[in-house]
Amino acid sequence: MSFAQTLAHRAEQIDAELANLFVAGPAAATPSRLREAMRHALLGGGKRLRPFLVIESAYLFGAGAPEAAASAAAIECIHSYSLAHDDLPSMDNDATRRGHPTVWKAFDEWTAILAGDGLLTLAFEILADPSAHPDPAVRASLSLLLARASGSAGMVGGQALDLAWEKLDSTSPATADQVRELQSMKTGALITCACEMGAVIGGADDEARRALRTYGNALGFAFQIADDLLDAEGDSSKTGKAVAKDKALGKATLVELWGPGRCRDLLAELQNDCRAALAPFGDKATTLIATAEFVATRDR
Amino acid sequence: MSFAQTLAHRAEQIDAELANLFVAGPAAATPSRLREAMRHALLGGGKRLRPFLVIESAYLFGAGAPEAAASAAAIECIHSYSLAHDDLPSMDNDATRRGHPTVWKAFDEWTAILAGDGLLTLAFEILADPSAHPDPAVRASLSLLLARASGSAGMVGGQALDLAWEKLDSTSPATADQVRELQSMKTGALITCACEMGAVIGGADDEARRALRTYGNALGFAFQIADDLLDAEGDSSKTGKAVAKDKALGKATLVELWGPGRCRDLLAELQNDCRAALAPFGDKATTLIATAEFVATRDR
Repeated sequence: MSFAQTLAHRAEQIDAELANLFVAGPAAATPSRLREAMRHALLGGGKRLRPFLVIESAYLFGAGAPEAAASAAAIECIHSYSLAHDDLPSMDNDATRRGHPTVWKAFDEWTAILAGDGLLTLAFEILADPSAHPDPAVRASLSLLLARASGSAGMVGGQALDLAWEKLDSTSPATADQVRELQSMKTGALITCACEMGAVIGGADDEARRALRTYGNALGFAFQIADDLLDAEGDSSKTGKAVAKDKALGKATLVELWGPGRCRDLLAELQNDCRAALAPFGDKATTLIATAEFVATRDR
Repeated sequence: MSFAQTLAHRAEQIDAELANLFVAGPAAATPSRLREAMRHALLGGGKRLRPFLVIESAYLFGAGAPEAAASAAAIECIHSYSLAHDDLPSMDNDATRRGHPTVWKAFDEWTAILAGDGLLTLAFEILADPSAHPDPAVRASLSLLLARASGSAGMVGGQALDLAWEKLDSTSPATADQVRELQSMKTGALITCACEMGAVIGGADDEARRALRTYGNALGFAFQIADDLLDAEGDSSKTGKAVAKDKALGKATLVELWGPGRCRDLLAELQNDCRAALAPFGDKATTLIATAEFVATRDR
């Protein structure tokens, strides 16, 4: 199986888990309109990269996909809620995502806000439930990791910095350090969190957990640089996004600040960092190393 | 000390805990604009009824205020985020709350949405942190209770039902059962949760936990009826809200469906239910019984 096939196969399994949240799972008792909006936000496709990272990281420590299932679902709930809120008219004002209407377009603003709130809360309901993991210390640990990565000092904080820069402060120059900080909060924190959650599920020791964090940090950075390169130079028929959208919005990216050549060199370095971090795991890490290659070289 | 003084005294202690979240606590690393908006949402006054209920319920089982502090802060983060989101233009479109501009008015819509997201996430970060309670099983249990009460089958679901009825469906008649369901999700669930969290913090057995849930359900119902009576007949100079606002919005209330007389009888019954539920705790429950009286007879 090629890496793309492995990823697609996992995405199908993850989609089935996510759909089940609304049938037999904790979101089954949700009022109908809200439930449909949450489903729209959560089940609108996507590569399911974050849940994939949870499952593959847990695998390094001998934990199977069923043991990682709750964390995989929870982190995707967080990612999906953030997209539903980011797309709102008062934020990025996006009408379509992956070829479908965004949640506020398909329903309305208040429904999209509440669907996001519902998915955010659902993530922590999933992790706190005894079915997530038999050891309550692991459940609490997973909740803490996810809350830190996705909260006001992580993902939400990164989105606030991004919008403040775009809407309030676009005349001031952004330095590479500022761009890095914003991106590592907005995108990197949750990707690193996915890898570290896998380590926690598998009962990794401190050193192994640190290795997964190092891998996650390099992967998240690579993800963002590849995203910026795609925005600057990608084929909009593949990415499904307008090219140079960031530039049009006045958003600084490292590609703009450093040029595409230096960014491509950095991408190669980051792939090496990913490999080095996972070296202690030998062949077991093949899929995670392929993930780093995929992230760095994807064209959509 | 009168009950009102006890409540005010606790509110001061709770406010100090909440303010500290942004100084030495988990929200200290939040970017400045977002942090100020979260502070605005969380520290804008209020009776702090939910944290008070957590602390007083925990007291029944011998747990002191410091042991209940994390849960008290977490539930107020949830309550405050819900107000920041409910006030948004696409929801209730409120410009003032407790005499101050609402979060979106003081900042803007995107900041208010993100501040709410940040506070929601912060609640679960507080509860998952080892400092919340030494026993991880208790931490996970508290997270689960709070997520269920505040999520799409609880508070968020109730707000969705309320807005759907107001904005999409206002021609269809609302029955008393529908109003009850909506209100018990939107308001009651979090009040019951506060009482049950106190029981969990104190290590209550199943029977005692059920008693606190029974008390919380009756208290939440009483709270809502008192609120509806105030909306229909209250003194707006005291409540700080326009009188008959619900009626103007076309919202059905039990006061409208049943009349004020029957609602006042029901309030008295619910106070009896509160007393009966707490009878096994004897004098230790004096403050919680006074809370039920306060909730039923408040004029603001």
